[in-house]
Amino acid sequence: MPAKGVLVAVTADVVIAGGGVIGTAIAWRAAAAGLDVVLADPAHGDAASLVAAGMLAPVSEALFGEGALLRVNLLALARFPSFAAELEQVTGHRVGLRREGTLAVAYDAGDYAALTRLTAFRRSAGLEAEELDSRACRKLESFLTPDVHGGVLFPGDWSVDNRRYAAALREAAASAGVRVVRDRVTAVLTAGGADGAGGAGARVRGVALAEGGEIGADRVVVAAGSWSGAVHGLPAGLRSAVRPVKGQLLRLRHPAGLPPVLTHTIRATVRGADVYLVPRADGEVIVGATQEERGPDLTVTAGAVHDLLHDAMSVLPVTSELILAETCSGLRPGTPDNGPIVGEAGPGGLLLATGHYRNGILMSAATADAAVACLTGRAPAPEWEPFGPGRFLTGEGVP
Amino acid sequence: MPAKGVLVAVTADVVIAGGGVIGTAIAWRAAAAGLDVVLADPAHGDAASLVAAGMLAPVSEALFGEGALLRVNLLALARFPSFAAELEQVTGHRVGLRREGTLAVAYDAGDYAALTRLTAFRRSAGLEAEELDSRACRKLESFLTPDVHGGVLFPGDWSVDNRRYAAALREAAASAGVRVVRDRVTAVLTAGGADGAGGAGARVRGVALAEGGEIGADRVVVAAGSWSGAVHGLPAGLRSAVRPVKGQLLRLRHPAGLPPVLTHTIRATVRGADVYLVPRADGEVIVGATQEERGPDLTVTAGAVHDLLHDAMSVLPVTSELILAETCSGLRPGTPDNGPIVGEAGPGGLLLATGHYRNGILMSAATADAAVACLTGRAPAPEWEPFGPGRFLTGEGVP
Repeated sequence: MPAKGVLVAVTADVVIAGGGVIGTAIAWRAAAAGLDVVLADPAHGDAASLVAAGMLAPVSEALFGEGALLRVNLLALARFPSFAAELEQVTGHRVGLRREGTLAVAYDAGDYAALTRLTAFRRSAGLEAEELDSRACRKLESFLTPDVHGGVLFPGDWSVDNRRYAAALREAAASAGVRVVRDRVTAVLTAGGADGAGGAGARVRGVALAEGGEIGADRVVVAAGSWSGAVHGLPAGLRSAVRPVKGQLLRLRHPAGLPPVLTHTIRATVRGADVYLVPRADGEVIVGATQEERGPDLTVTAGAVHDLLHDAMSVLPVTSELILAETCSGLRPGTPDNGPIVGEAGPGGLLLATGHYRNGILMSAATADAAVACLTGRAPAPEWEPFGPGRFLTGEGVP
Repeated sequence: MPAKGVLVAVTADVVIAGGGVIGTAIAWRAAAAGLDVVLADPAHGDAASLVAAGMLAPVSEALFGEGALLRVNLLALARFPSFAAELEQVTGHRVGLRREGTLAVAYDAGDYAALTRLTAFRRSAGLEAEELDSRACRKLESFLTPDVHGGVLFPGDWSVDNRRYAAALREAAASAGVRVVRDRVTAVLTAGGADGAGGAGARVRGVALAEGGEIGADRVVVAAGSWSGAVHGLPAGLRSAVRPVKGQLLRLRHPAGLPPVLTHTIRATVRGADVYLVPRADGEVIVGATQEERGPDLTVTAGAVHDLLHDAMSVLPVTSELILAETCSGLRPGTPDNGPIVGEAGPGGLLLATGHYRNGILMSAATADAAVACLTGRAPAPEWEPFGPGRFLTGEGVP
């Protein structure tokens, strides 16, 4: 790496700050659209994108009253299969898209009442849902405890192996000519403008890097997830709009000789606590996830691991026999209204694609479409309209 | 490493098979006594010795009726401080010997009844024990749950940081001139004997290594822990006497800002299940351990991690706030009578120092004394007499 203060003579059409699934998906599609793209990330791909279950479950992630978020999630779900198919075709790697559906199960009567309300909401959104009694749940998943009160099968919920998916995106981006700079973007640099400091009329001219270099580009995409607020040169309202929401999850593996314990993704509510178990084609089972407002803390805590295992074992006792292969912790980029921030804001040429919270994997394909539309002078799909950066701007200039 | 079939021209006075705390302690003391020592281990020190809590608790590890084991454990405890002091003096490193004592706590009345029986046994062995009610327990350890039924303080129980201790032993051995061969001993080689195959009158002439080499020595110490039975050339009764007993444990760490949650080692019985929490000077807390008869299986299982965390949190709720830094699994070398196997057997020049089960760290110093006594023609302490290999021999020759 260059020493501090040494400028790196890199220029591009577009520089993307952040190499998670959002930044990498945008990089791939922008390069495929003919743009010269540089992606900057100190640990390309080694962030929240790897600490995910890869559920593609638009409705169960949208809360009551979040109709706009539901619509953009449904757009994202509809786009995902063709995007994944192209990714597999370009790279020759499977990304582990599974379409068995999600089986939501309720541990007790109170949990079942909550599930019933969610089911009504999902049906009102036009999604298929099949109510099942305990016995029917166990017919679908024979390792479920007989104590489960009941469940609902949502055949339209899918999942993807987020690590295979992220790796394929990196490979596709590289094949399309995206250059990667392993450094952190500290600031968006601007030129012109009434006040000479990024005010009205200013345009981006590139980014500054932590190691002291710069990358010249007249378009910058900030896709830095929960670290987006650390990038100087964003309007202040945007810098404070994204906060890290810690999530801890577990990766379990089948020991030799044990047949697969799950076919469907299980979303369980155990006495009010939510836990999910997501099976992978390679025998892995993901168990997640906590939601913690603890700032940029990435520790794995004894209490979280206990609670995840406890809730998973409550609905699927055989979980105790699985190998605890990995415990991990990531930071979701949360926003005040739980919606992503996708669109142009601040100095000309600046695009944001961040704040995807729990839906980064799901929204990655549709976000790439929207970002590339902006970068090539087209309008994103109308579903994105409510999620522009403007909603967090309060008329202030650039700090 | 040399290719298979290539002989390594190494000779020594003594070759030691196994580089855990037992083998390394013997190597150090034998070299200090003037012997030329080679220690062979494929992963010097990276075995059961690292997966331990380092409790120096002779009585609570001895069951009713195991009086001989208790006596040798008490010998080992008495020897430990001077051995550790010399080790610290030689290496300049602290090994984390703690003498605060153990607080045994009982979660419910049934657990307390069992603890009362153990206390009587410990007192009968001459050990100090102080009965405490729940309130007095919490005066000693303020983070204990008020639900604890009662406890007993055993001031004579100590602990050592097993990883620091093992690392210091390796350093002391190296300083004393012990040479390490990173290979696995597959067989004890013999010469002479009535039948030409290690029978009566045979003497050892060295060992064969997995990579194809040999080490020449007329004395061989097998200190290979739960792998001791894999060494060919041992009398058959000894090869089958040692079995792996799997133990899983957790290493927790304090997050920044949390004061130490423990001063004493806690041994808790939670509705019949035993769990211990051992604090380290550097802020680590070890939580252990399972005892599983599963052969040479080293997987970490979801169920074991759950149960350890659950039981630890039951007595010390603040455990949930600690960082789960590591989950690990090791294989204790168990024997049919739970006692170690220390002494000469089989062909002349062969010495065994294995089968230490749950007491390897505790017994390491005293075992080194006993082994060096044998190697230099002296008699070990009389406490070792019941633990000779002869008790597992059935008159058979070498297979």
